[in-house]
Amino acid sequence: MKWMMWVVLSSLSIPALAGETAAQGSIDTLWVVMAAALVFFMQAGFALLESGMSRAKNAVNVMMKNYMDVCLGSLIFWLVGYGLMFGENFTGFFGASHFALFNTSSESQSWDYTVLLFQIMFAATAVTICSGAMAERTKYDAYLIATCVITAFIYPVFGSWVWGGMYGGSGWLAELGFIDFAGSTVVHSVGAWCALAGIIVLGARTGRFDRTTGAARSIPGHNLSLVALGGFILWLGWFGFNGGSTLAASPEIGLIVLNTQLAAAAGATGALLFSRITRRPVLLTSTINGSIAGLVGITAGCASMTPEFAALTGLIAGAISVYGAGWLERRGLDDVVGAIPVHGFAGAWGTLAAGLFLKDNMFDLSQIAVQLVGIFSAFFWAFPLSLILFFLIDRVIGLRASTQHEQQGLDFTEHDEVGYPEFHQNVTYHREL
Amino acid sequence: MKWMMWVVLSSLSIPALAGETAAQGSIDTLWVVMAAALVFFMQAGFALLESGMSRAKNAVNVMMKNYMDVCLGSLIFWLVGYGLMFGENFTGFFGASHFALFNTSSESQSWDYTVLLFQIMFAATAVTICSGAMAERTKYDAYLIATCVITAFIYPVFGSWVWGGMYGGSGWLAELGFIDFAGSTVVHSVGAWCALAGIIVLGARTGRFDRTTGAARSIPGHNLSLVALGGFILWLGWFGFNGGSTLAASPEIGLIVLNTQLAAAAGATGALLFSRITRRPVLLTSTINGSIAGLVGITAGCASMTPEFAALTGLIAGAISVYGAGWLERRGLDDVVGAIPVHGFAGAWGTLAAGLFLKDNMFDLSQIAVQLVGIFSAFFWAFPLSLILFFLIDRVIGLRASTQHEQQGLDFTEHDEVGYPEFHQNVTYHREL
Amino acid sequence: MKWMMWVVLSSLSIPALAGETAAQGSIDTLWVVMAAALVFFMQAGFALLESGMSRAKNAVNVMMKNYMDVCLGSLIFWLVGYGLMFGENFTGFFGASHFALFNTSSESQSWDYTVLLFQIMFAATAVTICSGAMAERTKYDAYLIATCVITAFIYPVFGSWVWGGMYGGSGWLAELGFIDFAGSTVVHSVGAWCALAGIIVLGARTGRFDRTTGAARSIPGHNLSLVALGGFILWLGWFGFNGGSTLAASPEIGLIVLNTQLAAAAGATGALLFSRITRRPVLLTSTINGSIAGLVGITAGCASMTPEFAALTGLIAGAISVYGAGWLERRGLDDVVGAIPVHGFAGAWGTLAAGLFLKDNMFDLSQIAVQLVGIFSAFFWAFPLSLILFFLIDRVIGLRASTQHEQQGLDFTEHDEVGYPEFHQNVTYHREL
Repeated sequence: MKWMMWVVLSSLSIPALAGETAAQGSIDTLWVVMAAALVFFMQAGFALLESGMSRAKNAVNVMMKNYMDVCLGSLIFWLVGYGLMFGENFTGFFGASHFALFNTSSESQSWDYTVLLFQIMFAATAVTICSGAMAERTKYDAYLIATCVITAFIYPVFGSWVWGGMYGGSGWLAELGFIDFAGSTVVHSVGAWCALAGIIVLGARTGRFDRTTGAARSIPGHNLSLVALGGFILWLGWFGFNGGSTLAASPEIGLIVLNTQLAAAAGATGALLFSRITRRPVLLTSTINGSIAGLVGITAGCASMTPEFAALTGLIAGAISVYGAGWLERRGLDDVVGAIPVHGFAGAWGTLAAGLFLKDNMFDLSQIAVQLVGIFSAFFWAFPLSLILFFLIDRVIGLRASTQHEQQGLDFTEHDEVGYPEFHQNVTYHREL
Repeated sequence: MKWMMWVVLSSLSIPALAGETAAQGSIDTLWVVMAAALVFFMQAGFALLESGMSRAKNAVNVMMKNYMDVCLGSLIFWLVGYGLMFGENFTGFFGASHFALFNTSSESQSWDYTVLLFQIMFAATAVTICSGAMAERTKYDAYLIATCVITAFIYPVFGSWVWGGMYGGSGWLAELGFIDFAGSTVVHSVGAWCALAGIIVLGARTGRFDRTTGAARSIPGHNLSLVALGGFILWLGWFGFNGGSTLAASPEIGLIVLNTQLAAAAGATGALLFSRITRRPVLLTSTINGSIAGLVGITAGCASMTPEFAALTGLIAGAISVYGAGWLERRGLDDVVGAIPVHGFAGAWGTLAAGLFLKDNMFDLSQIAVQLVGIFSAFFWAFPLSLILFFLIDRVIGLRASTQHEQQGLDFTEHDEVGYPEFHQNVTYHREL
Repeated sequence: MKWMMWVVLSSLSIPALAGETAAQGSIDTLWVVMAAALVFFMQAGFALLESGMSRAKNAVNVMMKNYMDVCLGSLIFWLVGYGLMFGENFTGFFGASHFALFNTSSESQSWDYTVLLFQIMFAATAVTICSGAMAERTKYDAYLIATCVITAFIYPVFGSWVWGGMYGGSGWLAELGFIDFAGSTVVHSVGAWCALAGIIVLGARTGRFDRTTGAARSIPGHNLSLVALGGFILWLGWFGFNGGSTLAASPEIGLIVLNTQLAAAAGATGALLFSRITRRPVLLTSTINGSIAGLVGITAGCASMTPEFAALTGLIAGAISVYGAGWLERRGLDDVVGAIPVHGFAGAWGTLAAGLFLKDNMFDLSQIAVQLVGIFSAFFWAFPLSLILFFLIDRVIGLRASTQHEQQGLDFTEHDEVGYPEFHQNVTYHREL
C-alpha cells in the first residue's frame, strides 16, 4: 500500500503518509479506529439488505451467514490473511510475514494493531458480498468454508498485488501505478467475481426462471423496510471505508468523504433516471442498489477526483447497476440481491473512472491501460480460483441445499429457528414480471 | 456563520474558531467529518420513524421519499444551495458565490469540502422533515420537486440570514445577535413550516377525521419497533448535529453533547409526565417524539446553556410536542408523524429558550426580542413561500395521490413494489379514539 | 478510576493519562464524545435484541423500557449517581461530591462535562441489562422505579469501589489492584446480578415451564432479524465502550479495539463450537449471544492482554453463554434473552481472565485472588440489595403484571398501543423442545 500511496501522493499532491513510519500518533489511531467501526457497521447493512431481499423463510439463514462470516473472517484474516496481504512482499505476488502479527516490532506494534483492525473489516466486507448473491439455496457449512478460503487466500493474495509490502517490498500492480484508493477492485470486484463463480456452480433458485420458456420471474424480498435501512447503513459505513483508507488524519478526508456522498447520491439518481428512460418501474431495491453502486464506483478514485467527476462516476455506476442486473438475468444467472452488478460491474467501472478522471492528469492513456490491467487481473485471479473452490466444495460436501430444504426455507432446515414465528406468511410467492 | 459564532463566542467565552481561517487542521476535519456521518445517519432515523408510523401499504413510499430526498438534496445543495447560504453575503439576505465550490481558493479548498459535506447533511435534514408530515397521500414526483425547491432556495436563503457570510459579509439576523447554534430555527422550524404548508394544501388522509362530526380517528403506524429504532438513531445522530456545529474540535463539545443528552432524556420524560397529568395514554410514539422534541429544543442553545437549563428546555419541549399534536388534530390538520409539533413548535420554544437561559446573561429582554424576531421571520419566510410552492405543484402536476391510489397504498401504485409481500395484512385499519 | 488506571498503567506500561489532570485537550474530548455516542447506540442494540427475542405482543413494552431507562437513567445519574461514583471518596466505599457537577471547578469543567457524558452512557448500559431478563411480565412503572434505584445507588456505589475517587481518594478494590478496565464486573455483572434478583422475585412467564413435569418450553422471539441487527449494533457500540475507557486519545486504542473485535468473533465461534459439540442446534440467538458474551468477557482485560488471549477469553465466554443459559433453565429460572449468562457469567469469567492472562505477568496468584475478590464482592453487593429492592417494589405496588395482562400482552395493557396492528399474529406460540 505504501507504494500505491506514494504513487497517488506524488502524482496528486495529496499530503500525508509520505514521511511517516510505523509509529504514528494518537490522532491517526483515533481516525482509523473510528473508520474501522464504521466499516464494521457495513456488515449490518449487508445483512439487512440481503435478508430483506430474500424471502422470510430464509431471513435467519442470511443473517447467520453475514454474522458468522465476519466472525470467522476476522479470526482467519488475523491469523493468515494479513500476513499474505501486507507482510514482506519481495516477489510482488504475496506477503510472507506478520501472520497473527507474530514478528511485529515493539515500536510499530500499536500502529500494527490499528491497521490490522481496519484491514480485518475490509476482508470481512469482501467476503460478505458473496452471501447475498448466493442466498436462499446455499448450505450453511459450505458457505462458511468458502468464506474461510476467500479470506485466507483469494482476497489477500490479490490485495498484496496492490496494497502489499507494508513491511518491505511492493505489489506488482502497485509498481505499475495502479490506482485503487480504497478498493473498488481489491475489495468489491474481487468479492463480486467470487459471487459470480458461486452462483454459476449453484444454479438459480427453484422457480426463478420458467422451466419451459426460461423467462425470469421476480421473487420479491420479504422486508423492504430492512432493505432501505441496510442501504442507509452501508452508505454511512462507506464514509469510514473511503475516509479511513487514508490511514491518517488529514485535511484531505473532507474531499474523500464529500466525493463519497455525491457519488452515492448520484448513483441513486442514475438508477432512477435509467429506470425512467428505459421504462422500468422505479423500484426501491434498484434505487438503493444504485446508491451502493455509486459508492462502489467512487471507492477507487475518491481521493483523486474533483467532486464533479465523483458525481459523474456515481451517476454512471448507478445506471450500470440497473442495466447489469437485467443483463445477468437474461443469461439465466440468479443473483438474489444484485451483488455482481453493484460490486463487480460498478467496481470495474469505478476503477476505470479513477484513471479517466484523474485530477490534473485526465484521460491519460497509459494510466487507463494500467487500470485495465488491474481490473482484468482481478477477474482472472478471483473468478477461476473461486470457481474451483465452489466446485470442490460441491463435490465434497455439497454446496446447494436440497430442493426440499429450499422449499421449506433454510431457517428451519439449517438453523432450527424461524425468523417470524408469530406472523402468518405465504410460504412461497412468485410474481410474473 | 462566522459572525454568529463570533457573537456567541465573545458573549459566552467559548474558546475556538476565533482566530482561525479557512485552512484548518486535521483534527477539525476529522471531527466535522465524523459529525457529518452522524448527521447523515439521522436520515435513516427519519425514514424508520416515518415509515413505522405509516401504514404498511405506504412503507416503501415513505422510505423512498427519505432515500431520494437525501440524494437529490445533496446534489442540489452542492450545486445551488451552498452558494446561496454561505457565499459572499453583502446584502445580508443571500449569498452569491461558491456555487458547486466554483470559486474556492486553493488554500481553503480542503476545509471548504469538509464544510460543504457537513452542510449538505443539514440541508437534507431540513427537507426530510416534510416527508413524514405529508406521508401516505403525496405523489412521489411532486414530493421530489418540492424537495429540490426547498433545498435549493427556501432553506438556504433563510440560512444565509443566520449563518451566512462564510466568505465575506454577514446575515441580517446574525447582525442582530440572533442565537441559533445548530439550527432549532434554521433547520427544524423551517422544515416544519414547509411541512405545515404541505399538509394544508394536501388535506387529511381519507378516514383520518369523521366525515360528519369531524372527530379525529387514530390511524396507527404499522411497525412501532422501527419507530423506536428510528428514535434511537435520531438521538445518536444529534450528537453530531449539535456537536459538529462547532466546526472545530474543542473541549466545549463535552458540554454541547451532554446538554443534548440531557435535553433528549428530559424531553421523553416531559412527554410522559404531560401525558400522565392530562390523563392521556403513555404512547411509544409520543414518548419518542418527546425525546426528539427535546433534541430539537436544545439545538439552538446547546452551546450557551448550563446542563440544568438544557434539561428544563428539553422537559418543556417534550410536553409541547404532546400538546401540539393534539392542538393540530383539533384543527383538522393531519400530520402523520407529529413533525410540526416536534420540529416547529419545539424548535420555536428552543430558540426562545436559548435567549431566556443564556449562560451569564439570563432573561435579557433585548436578547429575547432578537430571538422572537428570528422565530417569526423563519415562519413568515418559509410558510408562505412553501404554501405557494405546494399550491403551484398541485396546480401543475397534482400534489395529492388519487383516493383510489391512497386506498391501495402508494407502494403499489407509485413504486410497483410492496414492503412485506409475504405477510398477511389488514388493508386498512382505523381505531376510534 | 485514576488509581485503577495508575495500577494498569504502571504495571502494563500503557502510556497516557498519568500526568494529565482535569483540563484535557480537544482530541481527548473528541474521542470520549465519539465513544460516548457509540455506547449510547448500544441502547438501540439492547432494545432490538430484547424486543426481537420477546413475543410480538410485548414488543412495544420492551422498547419502551429500554427507551425510558436511558432517559430516566441519564437524569438520575447526572443528579445522584455520578457524585456517588466519582466524587471525593475518602472512605473507599462511596463518593460524596460533584452531584449534578455542583462543585466542579472552572478549569476542569469542560472535561467534567465530557466524563459525565461518557459515564451516563455506562450507567444506562448497566441498568438496561435487567429489562431483557425480566421482559414480558414486569409492570412498566415497577420497572422504571427499579431503574432509578439501580442507577442512583446500586451501580454507582459499587462503581466507586473500582473507579471512584476521580476528585480525591480512591476505591477499596482499586487499592487492592483490581483490574476491570471497562467494566466486565462493574457494569455487566452488576447489571446481571440485579437481573437475577429480578427474575427470582418475578417468577417465570406463564407457559415457560411445564406445570406438571417442570420441563422447559422454548418461547421463540418474534423477530430474529431485529435480534441480529441488535447484535451488530451492540458489537459496534462496544468499540466505544472499551476504546473510550482510556478516557484519552492514545495509540493503545488500536490494541483495545482489536482485542474487542477478536473476542467478539471468537465468542460467536465458541458458542457455535460448543453447540455443535454438545449436539445442540446452532441457533441465531445463541450465536449472537455468544458474540456478546465474548465482548463482555474482554471488557475487563482488553487493555492488558495480547490478541491471542483476547481471542481465547472470547472463545470461552461464548461457550459459557450457551452452557449458562441451559444451567439457568434447568433451575427453573426464566431469563428471556439470556442476559444473566451473557453479562453475569461471561463477565465474571472475563474479570478472572483479565488476571489470568495479564500481559507480562500471567497467572500471578495474587492478582487472581484480587480478581476473585472483585467478582464476589460485586455479587454480594448487587444481588442481595436488588433482591430486597424488587421484593419491596412487589409488596408496595406489585412487580408482576397480572396473568390476564401477560396473556393479552403488555403492549395493549400497559401502553394502549400494539406493535404491528396490521399484521395477523398468533396470540401465543409455544414449541416443545
